[in-house]
Amino acid sequence: MNSHSLYLVLDLIGTFAFAISGAVAARQRRLDLFGIVSVAFMVACGGGIVRDVCIGAIPPAGLSNWRYLAVSLLASAVAILAYAPVRRLRQPVLLFDAIGLGLFAVAGAQKTLSFGHGAEVAILLGIVSAVGGGVMRDVVLSRLPAILDREIYASAALAGAGAQVLFSYAHWTQWWTPWFATFICVAIRLASLYFGWGLPAFRGPPANVVHEEK
Amino acid sequence: MNSHSLYLVLDLIGTFAFAISGAVAARQRRLDLFGIVSVAFMVACGGGIVRDVCIGAIPPAGLSNWRYLAVSLLASAVAILAYAPVRRLRQPVLLFDAIGLGLFAVAGAQKTLSFGHGAEVAILLGIVSAVGGGVMRDVVLSRLPAILDREIYASAALAGAGAQVLFSYAHWTQWWTPWFATFICVAIRLASLYFGWGLPAFRGPPANVVHEEK
Amino acid sequence: MNSHSLYLVLDLIGTFAFAISGAVAARQRRLDLFGIVSVAFMVACGGGIVRDVCIGAIPPAGLSNWRYLAVSLLASAVAILAYAPVRRLRQPVLLFDAIGLGLFAVAGAQKTLSFGHGAEVAILLGIVSAVGGGVMRDVVLSRLPAILDREIYASAALAGAGAQVLFSYAHWTQWWTPWFATFICVAIRLASLYFGWGLPAFRGPPANVVHEEK
Repeated sequence: MNSHSLYLVLDLIGTFAFAISGAVAARQRRLDLFGIVSVAFMVACGGGIVRDVCIGAIPPAGLSNWRYLAVSLLASAVAILAYAPVRRLRQPVLLFDAIGLGLFAVAGAQKTLSFGHGAEVAILLGIVSAVGGGVMRDVVLSRLPAILDREIYASAALAGAGAQVLFSYAHWTQWWTPWFATFICVAIRLASLYFGWGLPAFRGPPANVVHEEK
Repeated sequence: MNSHSLYLVLDLIGTFAFAISGAVAARQRRLDLFGIVSVAFMVACGGGIVRDVCIGAIPPAGLSNWRYLAVSLLASAVAILAYAPVRRLRQPVLLFDAIGLGLFAVAGAQKTLSFGHGAEVAILLGIVSAVGGGVMRDVVLSRLPAILDREIYASAALAGAGAQVLFSYAHWTQWWTPWFATFICVAIRLASLYFGWGLPAFRGPPANVVHEEK
Repeated sequence: MNSHSLYLVLDLIGTFAFAISGAVAARQRRLDLFGIVSVAFMVACGGGIVRDVCIGAIPPAGLSNWRYLAVSLLASAVAILAYAPVRRLRQPVLLFDAIGLGLFAVAGAQKTLSFGHGAEVAILLGIVSAVGGGVMRDVVLSRLPAILDREIYASAALAGAGAQVLFSYAHWTQWWTPWFATFICVAIRLASLYFGWGLPAFRGPPANVVHEEK
């Protein structure tokens, strides 16, 4: 399998994972069929579309490559037809989401590098690829974006994207290095869930002065 | 009237229709003059700007062609000065919105095709052109985006964009074919309102587990 | 100092000002370290990234020029370590925000002109550069965007961007003209706060018909 196909496979597996998570969130909000498919597609492809626009990949792959839409539709069908078992199995869904996070951080960073951009752009857009769809889902469903909660989420994406960029600059480009970078991100994310890790937050006076500042 | 002018006229009529709907929504929220103009412009041009960025039409027409801003300002003036009669006539406003939906779906899909992109990109961006502005309005005004409600809205845009792409691929390009594609979308949207159509939604356990999944 | 460096300095000072305001808003919401840095970066660079995408400046400077991320991190550190004094001094923070508004409106409009775009695009994107980050912050933190409140905010950005475009077209391009355009915007903004200015808003029947229209 050549390098281009490898990253496309990574990207499609991540698309499926995120589309399932988006379809389940939409189903829980009692959205109709179009709403479920829309949210699934938005979560799965939204971050990638923003990344493609920023690196000059026009038209964005999520819109022009039929495989992305097909995978989103498949995931929506699974989330609808197998909803009861999917809902009951909380840990597999969080696992899917973590796998998607890692795959997208790595594939997104690599695509950015392949378009000739530097390390900083690649790491930032790897993070955007991984968390962007989830932020769009949370904004549209009026939830505080999960990346801003007290959880190790985008930090894990930062680790995965950073590892991929580091391996690339060090010329570690065997077939297994992207899977290793993905594993770093997924391991950090799952360990943070298991051990209850979180980043420092800051206590202080009650938040009754939210609107004092602009 | 040549083909380019025809699609520009379609686009400007749709811009006016959506700008009126946005200005009325902002007026109902008691926003000030700048807020009304901003929301009207956002609803009218937002989807088109996202489409133009995705197809490589830089700078986006909504920003560079003065007619779009002029039409948005005109619609804001109408919504402010004629607010009382506009509010009373619910059905004409829904009619305006449906007409805008159809015109934008068709003109947006056609512009995408004219930039050399394929059928899938054209249909998806026709939908984005048609519903994007309304989604931005709902997100900014903290409402659940109308496209996710149990109504036939984006599905009608899908029909209009799909018809336009089909006619184009079948080389049906007389002056009346875009109006026919627009009519398909508008008819579906208005019929769904009249007959109370909706897509399947899915009942199930109460949504007290919204935050169980990520 | 040559012209390019001048506008980069303007842009970085504005970035610092906005990043402080974003970090303080995130701190008030009790977000964790990553959340504070994310919101600070989003407020500081979000508008500029949208502008860069619309004018064809790929990749966006906020992602590719390390100075922007560095300034955002510095501002986050200041907001965290010096939080108590920063919170108490309400007027300096509003002053920082007004300075950022003016600097971004002017630098954003000028960058758009330098990419060969016309006056309308430059003024609109100068406004987007100045207010876009704040709108993203408010949407993500589920607040009604400040630009839609009854305050002179985006109108001041319009004045600053308009002045810069006017000076450019009139060939007033000494080293001090962008600072003058910035001063116009900052003066309008601060005077509106001091004197309680606002744009006309429109009274009317109670807003119990918000969802009557689509």
